[in-house]
Amino acid sequence: MHDYAAPLRDMHFILRELAGQDAVSALQGFEDATPDVVEAILDEAGKFAAGVLGPINARGDVQGCRLDADGRVVTPDGWKEAWDRFVEAGWTGLSLPLEFGGQGLPKLVSTPVWEMWFATNMAFAMLPQLNVGQAEALLIAASDELKQTWLPKVVSGEWGSTMNLTEPQAGSDLAATRTRAEPAPDGSFRLFGQKIFISYGEHELTSNIVHLVLARLPDAPAGVKGLSLFLVPKFLLDADGNPGAKNDVRCIAIEHKLGIHGSPTCTMSYGDAGDAGGAVGWLVGGPNRGLETMFIMMNEARFGVGVQGAGLGERAYQLALGYARERVQGRDAITGEAGQPILHHPDVKRMLLSMRARVMAMRALLYTAAGWFDFAEHHPDAALAAKCRRYVDLLMPVAKGWCTEVGQQVCSDAIQVFGGMGFVEETGIAQFARDARIITIYEGTTGIQANDLIGRKILRESGETLRELIADLHATAATLREEAELGSLADGFADSIIAVERAAEWVLANGKERFAEVLAGAVPFLHLLGITCGAWQMARVALAARRRLAAGQGDPVYLASLVELARFYIASFGPQAAACSQAVREAGGPLIRFDAAAF
Amino acid sequence: MHDYAAPLRDMHFILRELAGQDAVSALQGFEDATPDVVEAILDEAGKFAAGVLGPINARGDVQGCRLDADGRVVTPDGWKEAWDRFVEAGWTGLSLPLEFGGQGLPKLVSTPVWEMWFATNMAFAMLPQLNVGQAEALLIAASDELKQTWLPKVVSGEWGSTMNLTEPQAGSDLAATRTRAEPAPDGSFRLFGQKIFISYGEHELTSNIVHLVLARLPDAPAGVKGLSLFLVPKFLLDADGNPGAKNDVRCIAIEHKLGIHGSPTCTMSYGDAGDAGGAVGWLVGGPNRGLETMFIMMNEARFGVGVQGAGLGERAYQLALGYARERVQGRDAITGEAGQPILHHPDVKRMLLSMRARVMAMRALLYTAAGWFDFAEHHPDAALAAKCRRYVDLLMPVAKGWCTEVGQQVCSDAIQVFGGMGFVEETGIAQFARDARIITIYEGTTGIQANDLIGRKILRESGETLRELIADLHATAATLREEAELGSLADGFADSIIAVERAAEWVLANGKERFAEVLAGAVPFLHLLGITCGAWQMARVALAARRRLAAGQGDPVYLASLVELARFYIASFGPQAAACSQAVREAGGPLIRFDAAAF
Repeated sequence: MHDYAAPLRDMHFILRELAGQDAVSALQGFEDATPDVVEAILDEAGKFAAGVLGPINARGDVQGCRLDADGRVVTPDGWKEAWDRFVEAGWTGLSLPLEFGGQGLPKLVSTPVWEMWFATNMAFAMLPQLNVGQAEALLIAASDELKQTWLPKVVSGEWGSTMNLTEPQAGSDLAATRTRAEPAPDGSFRLFGQKIFISYGEHELTSNIVHLVLARLPDAPAGVKGLSLFLVPKFLLDADGNPGAKNDVRCIAIEHKLGIHGSPTCTMSYGDAGDAGGAVGWLVGGPNRGLETMFIMMNEARFGVGVQGAGLGERAYQLALGYARERVQGRDAITGEAGQPILHHPDVKRMLLSMRARVMAMRALLYTAAGWFDFAEHHPDAALAAKCRRYVDLLMPVAKGWCTEVGQQVCSDAIQVFGGMGFVEETGIAQFARDARIITIYEGTTGIQANDLIGRKILRESGETLRELIADLHATAATLREEAELGSLADGFADSIIAVERAAEWVLANGKERFAEVLAGAVPFLHLLGITCGAWQMARVALAARRRLAAGQGDPVYLASLVELARFYIASFGPQAAACSQAVREAGGPLIRFDAAAF
Repeated sequence: MHDYAAPLRDMHFILRELAGQDAVSALQGFEDATPDVVEAILDEAGKFAAGVLGPINARGDVQGCRLDADGRVVTPDGWKEAWDRFVEAGWTGLSLPLEFGGQGLPKLVSTPVWEMWFATNMAFAMLPQLNVGQAEALLIAASDELKQTWLPKVVSGEWGSTMNLTEPQAGSDLAATRTRAEPAPDGSFRLFGQKIFISYGEHELTSNIVHLVLARLPDAPAGVKGLSLFLVPKFLLDADGNPGAKNDVRCIAIEHKLGIHGSPTCTMSYGDAGDAGGAVGWLVGGPNRGLETMFIMMNEARFGVGVQGAGLGERAYQLALGYARERVQGRDAITGEAGQPILHHPDVKRMLLSMRARVMAMRALLYTAAGWFDFAEHHPDAALAAKCRRYVDLLMPVAKGWCTEVGQQVCSDAIQVFGGMGFVEETGIAQFARDARIITIYEGTTGIQANDLIGRKILRESGETLRELIADLHATAATLREEAELGSLADGFADSIIAVERAAEWVLANGKERFAEVLAGAVPFLHLLGITCGAWQMARVALAARRRLAAGQGDPVYLASLVELARFYIASFGPQAAACSQAVREAGGPLIRFDAAAF
């Protein structure tokens, strides 16, 4: 299998030309993120990904994890060494505050780094991803005492992190959560209950594991407004702050899954030891405010899962390209020449180009959104910061929902390029498709993302931010039109924008009286907005490439290829926007009328 | 897991209303296929599928096959018993001639039966599928002596069958075949070479295995025109025609695959025993005419693989529906009511309805095509028979290519309905997606099907049959328009037809000068034609349902649901036709211009 090569050229192009790297590094607190530093970080990350994480990815898939009779979870060979090196290099705290031992770098810089981790070893990278999400939640919601006690070692990666939401009867519906927390006289709590699907719920990679657990206080109101969040460690700390007595929490089972075998998915039992009297925990944030806090962690995780889509897609693309360059088969359809690699066949080139175009579109949207994150939190211009926050909020479900769906398709296409060899597990490409199958499900399914988009992000504010976005899309189309070379791109892109407008009008007009029909179109709407935002970013890629070509800056072959890539994206995927738009507007009626008894 | 329930109501509706069951049973030789007989056969097949094949499907996936040190391939527990019962019931010969022990039933009747086998246990059903394909090839090409010797036990299933095309360097490109055949003085041949990816190449389910092997005679011309076909048994026959001495052929490895674990995928070695002097075989058909004959078997298999798409999709749909009816989660988006199964959520209903609609569209197209097969071979009206042959030829790559792509999507959607549980292997739904991943690859990838469609089926005859088909599509749209209730359906369907026309015009206009661009659009064109043929069939479903409603025949709830199903299909999937059409016409340019060095 070909080694991973970090797509540094594409990454830097997007960071600089599309995502506002210069503006981000001009923000207060980010002055250290100079172009040289960013380049050095991405270089190092690329080496680490290719040299440390990639080589153990297939082994993690084959070996998987196992639960010993004594309740220990054994991770694949090499996991422990890789984790120690990861921690030693300080990667966990890359974007976390200096105050707690992090490096305080912008999200714009950490995002391509995460892409590399996910590309080379998603099952492994889920572990540090949990640390970052948990740190963000603790930073915002935890008391100073909890922060001082737990954060430094969560940031450093000395301890692991988990998030505990799901229970057998409470999957997408957290209102059904039953785990309960009883107050203890010393201000701590005792937790009782079972959580399922807990990634890295138990392992021996770290000397302690910090669980964040959703549970109900006595007399808590029903539903999601009665959920509180608790920090529950695997080991309680001794007087010196080191892991001491075992807490009353254990892993009672791990799942046998389609993919991400290297990541143990645990069923965790809290407070089932009988005499021990419950798992000791502390309240994070206010009582009954657990969901809010969990959503901080979850939103972080959702963006990260979107990045998984791009990362897995990139790696699958690289592997397919490597195969297509080496595998000789058939004759050239035009010249009849034999002995050509399959990349020469127009349909194989189509598959690879559509993989590359979609990965580039996802990456451009994700990095641009990472820049919005940074501006939202740090830009001195309050109006601009507020606009970036609105865009982040509106497009978070798209970044998660669309990039995961597309990432999955790209991984499946990679198998197709390999043909029969792709179906043989030893080839290694099937793993990417199996791993990728979870990303449209966890951290909120595509359906949940789409409902969030339609309900909370569009209808609740009567489409205000969406209209603001549409105006920006039109502005990009107008700029395209000014470039003689890019006029035809502008037409294709404009069709997608119109498709969004028509669907948005329909959604806003029918959001009240025909809400069920609107929800039936939520996923097609999410795809529509994703495709169009992808087209937007590819239009920006083309504009930036033309600008640099005109200025005589950079490799002209590369820059010209980016223009063709954008044209290909908009010709291949752009027209699907109109198709999704029509489905949004027309498929809900028959769907509602279809009698469920007739299924 | 819910037991399989053969979708008899849908099957009979399509057979009678769309696929011409009455006309087929009026054909000479098919008089026995009365409605009662067909109903009894489908009933029995449904019971066999649900009762015998379904229950061992998951076990086959978990156990898989293994190759013993002594070269024996061990199939999963229950495989042998199921096969014995399958043979005893005479299912193998359902559509094969009475003369050789078959039942001589039309393809129209065997097709739904195959759908049931594939739905419940695709890995198992690949075995009898090979017998049927091989029998068809021997019937057409083998000498009388070979037929008398081998056919009866291939038809009965007492012996197994294989097809041996692929070699490590010769996958899609059979021209690169190296296996050679040397003539022996007695008129037989000795084969030497290695074949890979041979389904059921070795096993102990049958007392003999009959291999059909592509190989080169000495002095054969290079390329595909130098391939001959040989019948090579596992055991040579003794004087009584029973399996005797072991032939010089053996399985040297089996693959570890993403899916269809119950089906052993073998590397077969011919003539490597040294002293034995090669594997004994007999020429089937003329020298250097092997590919032609193999294509008989392959065309049969391609249609069957299309049926796999529908079968896997149906079963995945049933399982997802069963889960969605039982899993309680969340509140009703409209009423706020709790305690509802997830089927109540509009997006879950959307997923299930889109699964059901696509399965119905595939089934309708496949059964209709099965009817064309029967008419092509048996109809007394030569013009009609010739037209049906043209349609079969034109649409075979669509039946294979489109139904497999759609079947895969449906199986993936089923996982999505299960959410997190879908990713857990024990749930059982992931197997269907893993099994389905091969169907767009084997028997010619989607790309190969699409090239066949564009090159051999459209350009070679300047689009003649395609134009004939388009006229039929317009006629159906016109009939829709005459039904006041179905007018809006007609508009949606007409858009798809126009999309086909525009793409076809472009392909025909550019097939010479811009052939590479045309080939780059081959797969989108295949999707376009598939979607539109699906819409055609769903339009016919709606028309037939309206007819029966108007006549007061049948269950009005069911019939009304079919009309809504057709509307949903055309609103959800119809608009993708225009998107594919645009991609065909516009994406090839940038694709060709994109410099492959810039990948």
